[in-house]
Amino acid sequence: MQLPVSIISLLTDFGDQDEYVGVMKGSILRRAPHAVIVDLCHQIAPHDIYQAADMILAAVNYFPADTLHVMVVDPGVGGKRDIVLAKASTSSFLCPDNGLLSGLIGQGLIQSVRQVTNQKLFTEVVSATFHGRDIIAPVAGYLASGGDPEALGPWVAIRDLVCLEEPKARMVADGWLQGTVLRVDRFGNVVTNIGRALLTSFLEGDLNSNLVVKIQNKWTLPMALSYSAVPTGGLLAIIGSRDTLEIAVNQGNAGRLIGVAAGDEIRVAPEC
Amino acid sequence: MQLPVSIISLLTDFGDQDEYVGVMKGSILRRAPHAVIVDLCHQIAPHDIYQAADMILAAVNYFPADTLHVMVVDPGVGGKRDIVLAKASTSSFLCPDNGLLSGLIGQGLIQSVRQVTNQKLFTEVVSATFHGRDIIAPVAGYLASGGDPEALGPWVAIRDLVCLEEPKARMVADGWLQGTVLRVDRFGNVVTNIGRALLTSFLEGDLNSNLVVKIQNKWTLPMALSYSAVPTGGLLAIIGSRDTLEIAVNQGNAGRLIGVAAGDEIRVAPEC
Amino acid sequence: MQLPVSIISLLTDFGDQDEYVGVMKGSILRRAPHAVIVDLCHQIAPHDIYQAADMILAAVNYFPADTLHVMVVDPGVGGKRDIVLAKASTSSFLCPDNGLLSGLIGQGLIQSVRQVTNQKLFTEVVSATFHGRDIIAPVAGYLASGGDPEALGPWVAIRDLVCLEEPKARMVADGWLQGTVLRVDRFGNVVTNIGRALLTSFLEGDLNSNLVVKIQNKWTLPMALSYSAVPTGGLLAIIGSRDTLEIAVNQGNAGRLIGVAAGDEIRVAPEC
Repeated sequence: MQLPVSIISLLTDFGDQDEYVGVMKGSILRRAPHAVIVDLCHQIAPHDIYQAADMILAAVNYFPADTLHVMVVDPGVGGKRDIVLAKASTSSFLCPDNGLLSGLIGQGLIQSVRQVTNQKLFTEVVSATFHGRDIIAPVAGYLASGGDPEALGPWVAIRDLVCLEEPKARMVADGWLQGTVLRVDRFGNVVTNIGRALLTSFLEGDLNSNLVVKIQNKWTLPMALSYSAVPTGGLLAIIGSRDTLEIAVNQGNAGRLIGVAAGDEIRVAPEC
Repeated sequence: MQLPVSIISLLTDFGDQDEYVGVMKGSILRRAPHAVIVDLCHQIAPHDIYQAADMILAAVNYFPADTLHVMVVDPGVGGKRDIVLAKASTSSFLCPDNGLLSGLIGQGLIQSVRQVTNQKLFTEVVSATFHGRDIIAPVAGYLASGGDPEALGPWVAIRDLVCLEEPKARMVADGWLQGTVLRVDRFGNVVTNIGRALLTSFLEGDLNSNLVVKIQNKWTLPMALSYSAVPTGGLLAIIGSRDTLEIAVNQGNAGRLIGVAAGDEIRVAPEC
Repeated sequence: MQLPVSIISLLTDFGDQDEYVGVMKGSILRRAPHAVIVDLCHQIAPHDIYQAADMILAAVNYFPADTLHVMVVDPGVGGKRDIVLAKASTSSFLCPDNGLLSGLIGQGLIQSVRQVTNQKLFTEVVSATFHGRDIIAPVAGYLASGGDPEALGPWVAIRDLVCLEEPKARMVADGWLQGTVLRVDRFGNVVTNIGRALLTSFLEGDLNSNLVVKIQNKWTLPMALSYSAVPTGGLLAIIGSRDTLEIAVNQGNAGRLIGVAAGDEIRVAPEC
């Protein structure tokens, strides 16, 4: 029989040019040499809490139960922000309390929270600029090696956590459904926050019609069930892997073609 | 005694800016928490099946026997292409049937193939755009946790797989040996498809002579046994780590110096 | 009870576009399927031995005892340079003898060294251009699977290792303390080689005063205990995670603002 494993995911804005991700892993493994560490993503734009808060939401359902998700996007490092351990029904989240949990809180996933205050669990000397290495990684290692969360610090009320307002898709004037571009992915797929349920209701159940899309310019696009439903190079609208509306080009780059970026507004309406 | 491990390699065009690689790993670990997942490469150019088909060929001999190689370069995702499990003598390959296996088929390495059709092994809801996460990763996890390949789906004949034509080096008019640049690597080494055996025979066994090389311009280069056989900054020809002809600069970047890219033609002849 | 694990860190200039890191991992796992491999960094600039020698020094204390650190920045591959295994009190270092150990030697951390000469431990065919895959990875796998270091090759004297001169911060004319920019990190933090102890003594114990900094232009900056001690967008000086002086911008990019790069000279003095 194999023993259970402790799985830790890492989501940071550290990029790959420095030693920062590597030393965090070293620091975790010093406490928990058997932990399995998975890189979720390290290319969050520097200090972009919104992007990370959104990405963890896209990822959390695809990880094993009991995964400890460690998030370090920490512009306030060394200042007054707290570090917290937040518990969902199965998984946990260890991160600065600066909005990284916003998406999870918004979905009602967080059930209890502890502040991380027990300095005995930190490295002996804690730097002013890298709490990921000196506080968060050793605490993650402590937890992954079976340490009791009670030792971390006192309970915090969920309502006291920093929770950033995220844009929500909604009906606006003249029969448009308005949303926001969450990001343009590596393939140029334009991922929006317009969910399948809202879109379906807005289109009165008809997810196969053409869609008029205002995003930079005005486009009329077929709703498609796969990229290959349109010819190579053709624009389409599709429910993507986030279960939200995406604008894509079959075997091409929609973001470049249309000229959009994360944060841009998008409006859609059924073709009349 | 330690138990045997299941090793899975991942080769994709997902890049590193999105959560796509991370959620595939999460999805594998949900089924096979003890699997050891190795990143082969995620920087395949979007949709570049040729590049991935070539890279797996360069890598496969250096992985442990029984490795499961998972490849996701999948421009036809959600369309009609199949997903297959191909078996070589020891290792296996799980990927869309879109040409990714071409190099392996060409080398006679594939021995049997199953189509992956058993939806019970997929995620409950399968997206139209991310079969890597919803089909391929859970099936990989199923296999890595000891699942029987028989449950995946029916046998497929190897001759029915998609097999792309890859350029082959060959003798052409006027005594030239003509090949193709497979890629220019991070160091600027110009990797060609001209294999050691063909070159040796072409040069009548003399791998130490000078070589005339037509690639953009015409160069006369020494065949060298190591980069340092020429002065710093000097051009050379060498049998590289793929056991094919490479054009390199000692401690410099040959690709930039010569101005070549993957797919360019290269011709070589012995200096007279 | 869980068995002890063999942890291997990898530090290379291989980048992420090629299969080079992946096949090294495959090659290690062929010998040591239970080894835990941690990416320290693969974005060392091609052939930049100084950068790697500095980075391992920044990382080594944060890894578990007994970690085997594998470093491959190897411009002289295939030439006359040796490959060595260097032992510190707990961890070990496997790398070409080309200066990669300089920082560790300078700190007095290396205690004994063996040359790696035993071809039985290499791959059957060793390429001229990729000893990372063909020599270093299989030897790392041999060691990680419990192989006796004695089999690698003969002892080498530490004084015979290649040791590069690294710039040292020092007092210069007119009351300035002069140092060097080691690098500008992903966040634009300008990391210098001016250590906390030297700076503290130079400032007569007053790490809270303003600092006059000559780096491209002349700036007067507050010494801060955290980024957030100055307003967003403000420049500051801080003791960073390397325990050296860094120039940073609160939630901004100091490297871009000031226009500096690794290797630039920096001079500091207390504000009068």
